[in-house]
Amino acid sequence: MRCYVTDESRHLLGVTTVKELLIHDYDDIIEEFMETNVIYVNTLDDQELAAQQLQKYNFLALPVVDMEERLVGIITVDDAFDVIQEENTEDIQKMNAMLPTEKTYLKTSVFETWKSRFPWLLLLMVSATFTGSIITGFEEKLKALTILTAFIPMLMDTGGNSGGQASVTIIRAMSLGEVDFRDYFRVIWKEVRVGLYCGLTLAAVNFIKIWVVDRMLFKNDEITLLVDLAICMTLVVEIVFAKFIGCSLPMLAKKIGFDPAVMSSPFITTIVDAISLLVFFGISSAVIPGLS
Amino acid sequence: MRCYVTDESRHLLGVTTVKELLIHDYDDIIEEFMETNVIYVNTLDDQELAAQQLQKYNFLALPVVDMEERLVGIITVDDAFDVIQEENTEDIQKMNAMLPTEKTYLKTSVFETWKSRFPWLLLLMVSATFTGSIITGFEEKLKALTILTAFIPMLMDTGGNSGGQASVTIIRAMSLGEVDFRDYFRVIWKEVRVGLYCGLTLAAVNFIKIWVVDRMLFKNDEITLLVDLAICMTLVVEIVFAKFIGCSLPMLAKKIGFDPAVMSSPFITTIVDAISLLVFFGISSAVIPGLS
Repeated sequence: MRCYVTDESRHLLGVTTVKELLIHDYDDIIEEFMETNVIYVNTLDDQELAAQQLQKYNFLALPVVDMEERLVGIITVDDAFDVIQEENTEDIQKMNAMLPTEKTYLKTSVFETWKSRFPWLLLLMVSATFTGSIITGFEEKLKALTILTAFIPMLMDTGGNSGGQASVTIIRAMSLGEVDFRDYFRVIWKEVRVGLYCGLTLAAVNFIKIWVVDRMLFKNDEITLLVDLAICMTLVVEIVFAKFIGCSLPMLAKKIGFDPAVMSSPFITTIVDAISLLVFFGISSAVIPGLS
Repeated sequence: MRCYVTDESRHLLGVTTVKELLIHDYDDIIEEFMETNVIYVNTLDDQELAAQQLQKYNFLALPVVDMEERLVGIITVDDAFDVIQEENTEDIQKMNAMLPTEKTYLKTSVFETWKSRFPWLLLLMVSATFTGSIITGFEEKLKALTILTAFIPMLMDTGGNSGGQASVTIIRAMSLGEVDFRDYFRVIWKEVRVGLYCGLTLAAVNFIKIWVVDRMLFKNDEITLLVDLAICMTLVVEIVFAKFIGCSLPMLAKKIGFDPAVMSSPFITTIVDAISLLVFFGISSAVIPGLS
């Protein structure tokens, strides 16, 4: 059991244990055997920091000091437990386009639940109309080769999922303290390579699937080798882009003081959707004769 | 400090505290004042259960017994801390279409990261091709009224986000023990109403936006009142559907013994995408003259 040592005005000087006090003689001076390197938190620190410190050092309690480093209380590991779970819930809500709610699910009213979900849905809905206008811009080309439209959901979803994976991984790693802004280029270099692997493997599967199923089995004549190639090239490029954006935005958000958790899947998806369509129409126009 | 009481063969009989032992007389029998209602975990229990119990009862330690209820050890709250964080990370990974990884982000190799992300991307990519084939099925109608294509991303994204919000909320509530299968109908009734609120408010905003911006500002003649109406009716119907599916699937998954976390946003999105398109084409065909 830990005992904190202070001076008369309660300034925190050190820490010792009941065991140490028992094994020392009555005339020993505490200052001589106490540990002076005390881990503590400040009254104004975020509760998350206290929880992280408790977890990091495997302590059962942590002293809390005021601005003049006077001991004003302790925080114990069971408080920290609840804090960590609340913070996790909050992160998960933010990562999935919701404003955090205070109460448990069944105690939150329908109206409150609506209030926590509506703002992000609205913002993302409006953003998605821009994606729609990209399609309108390529309307004429889509009329010339309507089969391309059929691949839009697959390309949009795969891009969104790829970006979401990267953003969620980085947000979690940052919140656990495993990654910070100093690792920016290391993270990007890693994600770009993961994106390349994912893109190439998915493109390979897709290339064969389109040729065998859509072309040979369903005898869709609109599908030529070049159409198949354009779709698969789009996959590779958009996935690398998605991974790059997915890991960059949360790190940049944190750097400029925003909560990285909001730079997560739904938001990334909206951006990646637009990029995927531009890449798709760009590559198709360049590769498929008669579309340029 | 808690002391566990056992018989000679180490069967756990009760629990008391150092304080209780100190205040009782030497000839008092422990059995008479010990607490017999002991909370414990079994060696074969999931580590998550131990962590949940510690959190629930605010204990600093919990006894662990074997199959014969013999005391074999204790688990302390600082072990539980790490377990809870690991479980949270695992849930977050599963909720975002990734297989859980053991190591921290920077220590996981590019190949291992690829391995954790590729399977879900592949599965979701293949599923999304079905969504694509729905579009192919309505190709002729889309040619007759190409403006409808421009609203596909907005409708798909909004449906996906709505379903994702519901599924993530329920998965989290289940993992915190706030909701279980007995609440099934209560949850559905709530989500359907939240869906209705979200759907009606988003549809109202969208109705005005389409009319003022797309029709009046950009003078797009393809947009009639009935086209606007079809799009907004789709929004309401798809969001209610999305909320229903988003909360149902994780609860049903848990009921039949699957991990509810995989029934999350990306998976829900793929299902909701297909439903959204069917609703969109169905309502459009019914409402807009010349499309049926």
